[in-house]
Amino acid sequence: MKYKLAFIGYGVVAQGLTEILIEKEEILKEKYDLEFAVVAISDIKKGSVYDENGLDMKNILELVRQGKQIDKYPSGIKGMDSVQTIKETNADVIVEVTFTDVKTGEPALTHIKTALENKKHVISTNKGPVVKKAGELLQLAEKNGVSYGFEGVVLAGTPAINLAQYTLAGNTISGFKGILNGTTNYILTQMENGMSYDEALEKAQELGYAEADPTGDVEGLDALGKVVILCNVILGKKITWDQVERKGITNISIDDIKKAKQEGKRWKLIGKAEIKQDGSLFAQVLPERLPLTDPLAGVMDATNALTYHTDELGSITIVGPGAGKRETGFSLLIDLININANLTSKK
Amino acid sequence: MKYKLAFIGYGVVAQGLTEILIEKEEILKEKYDLEFAVVAISDIKKGSVYDENGLDMKNILELVRQGKQIDKYPSGIKGMDSVQTIKETNADVIVEVTFTDVKTGEPALTHIKTALENKKHVISTNKGPVVKKAGELLQLAEKNGVSYGFEGVVLAGTPAINLAQYTLAGNTISGFKGILNGTTNYILTQMENGMSYDEALEKAQELGYAEADPTGDVEGLDALGKVVILCNVILGKKITWDQVERKGITNISIDDIKKAKQEGKRWKLIGKAEIKQDGSLFAQVLPERLPLTDPLAGVMDATNALTYHTDELGSITIVGPGAGKRETGFSLLIDLININANLTSKK
Repeated sequence: MKYKLAFIGYGVVAQGLTEILIEKEEILKEKYDLEFAVVAISDIKKGSVYDENGLDMKNILELVRQGKQIDKYPSGIKGMDSVQTIKETNADVIVEVTFTDVKTGEPALTHIKTALENKKHVISTNKGPVVKKAGELLQLAEKNGVSYGFEGVVLAGTPAINLAQYTLAGNTISGFKGILNGTTNYILTQMENGMSYDEALEKAQELGYAEADPTGDVEGLDALGKVVILCNVILGKKITWDQVERKGITNISIDDIKKAKQEGKRWKLIGKAEIKQDGSLFAQVLPERLPLTDPLAGVMDATNALTYHTDELGSITIVGPGAGKRETGFSLLIDLININANLTSKK
Repeated sequence: MKYKLAFIGYGVVAQGLTEILIEKEEILKEKYDLEFAVVAISDIKKGSVYDENGLDMKNILELVRQGKQIDKYPSGIKGMDSVQTIKETNADVIVEVTFTDVKTGEPALTHIKTALENKKHVISTNKGPVVKKAGELLQLAEKNGVSYGFEGVVLAGTPAINLAQYTLAGNTISGFKGILNGTTNYILTQMENGMSYDEALEKAQELGYAEADPTGDVEGLDALGKVVILCNVILGKKITWDQVERKGITNISIDDIKKAKQEGKRWKLIGKAEIKQDGSLFAQVLPERLPLTDPLAGVMDATNALTYHTDELGSITIVGPGAGKRETGFSLLIDLININANLTSKK
């Protein structure tokens, strides 16, 4: 099938997806019968453009690389805001990748709701709406006969959510345990290699893993958001931020790390949750000393990992990248391929 | 949808699936709209029975537990052989789980071909036919509008094949590296814990991991079969047994293991393959000393693991059980759920 995409937000992740789409155009058509045109882009800073027949995305990427506004594109309709772009263009898939407040979920929440109400598929890497309203949005999508894909909100393009929902189907998943934040795992790895916390943080910032204000990562807030998402989406248990015990890595010293190493252990920031016998939920984000025999202990640098606890297979762990322009952009392609697989088999 | 299953072979794996189907009957109906009846069983030693309206599987399991013949079942048609059962019953899904020569693929190969030619879906844990004829059988299935599922041939119910085919869709997979045999990994783990090779092997046999003749495991033949399967099915490269360099674990001494440990490394039997720049394939099964920072190094006991090398996501690793009655039985349910998902969405 052929899809008409509209990007709401056109930052790094959107550009990553664009690169992949351009490079893989042939393969996607041949292997998955998946064709596409990008008909609209609306970015609050970079401007907007709409052409119902499709934009030349190489041209768009070139404009962005040169630091120019998107509305310098030589043709098309300019000036449509995000909600107009969602409602009034002929796009049938909305790629929601705005900068969004993870606590309120806005403006992504409004974008996604508007798109689903207008019977348009949504693929998004925004955590906020999933943290706040996953159940409601998925219901809205089902009611309107469209999909809401968000593989990228946990472990970027590493297919953690699809693994649980599709390939582990038939299992009952009772809990999980994971290294859900790449920045902190990178810092802990570098501290084991001899850097101080401050040096490791600085290096993480240099590499683009950590932001100028690293609080969200090092205090465990980012991992917490992912725990909340996995509880809601995978375990089917409603939980909010304040119900999860949380501690970051800022109190772990070089001495702690050395001591653990001597004992054949390794510090990791672990986000986990488990449905208890009585049906209630236990969830926390906490640094733990894992034995080196734990599959999560060998996960180093910015790599992420997630172990699901299942009734039929015991522990199933997936290990892969947790961030990155292409890696996160790719998660949107996984969602798009899923939409296509469903629609193609319905023909 | 409702499926009529026929078991060809009724050993441990078939019984594992039966237990799961009985226990999960309600969930499968509610969650996946998947209903089933087992209409026939044909086992070369335990006898056969066919009832077009379905057998009482609790009754069958009880007969088997008591060591009785299946044809002691109180009703139904007795005495049909495997090919008759495939051709002449009303079954629409053939569960092929016979004891099969992994080198010739028989008798499973004949069973699977016959089933597909008769437009019946096949789900199977038999490695032989996949090693010998994966491509041909998949084509035959497609031609006849049915499915051939074999998730269980690598890593039992750990969804290694589905991960590559569905959830990593859109990636180009250029190679893999894995701990593909549970027995040898168990032996190496126990040797690190202080047992001799002979003690560890004996313990593995006690636990049912290793067979009386352990050659297939310890000489790397089992891992080799899985490398051949993954090359053919995932990398799309035809390769045969004799093209893969192979070495088992029988020459690894306690001293080797201690020495590796002192150097922060760990011996693992690794099966791997990589498509080279010129398009040719490099494949081998060999014991390797992995650094403890390798995600495969922390995979202990009988657990298996597989790392795929992808273009968009780099390395993606899945870790889980590689054997077991329920775990392997469950792989057949994954295949059945896949068949159902395809057919249901086509309605």
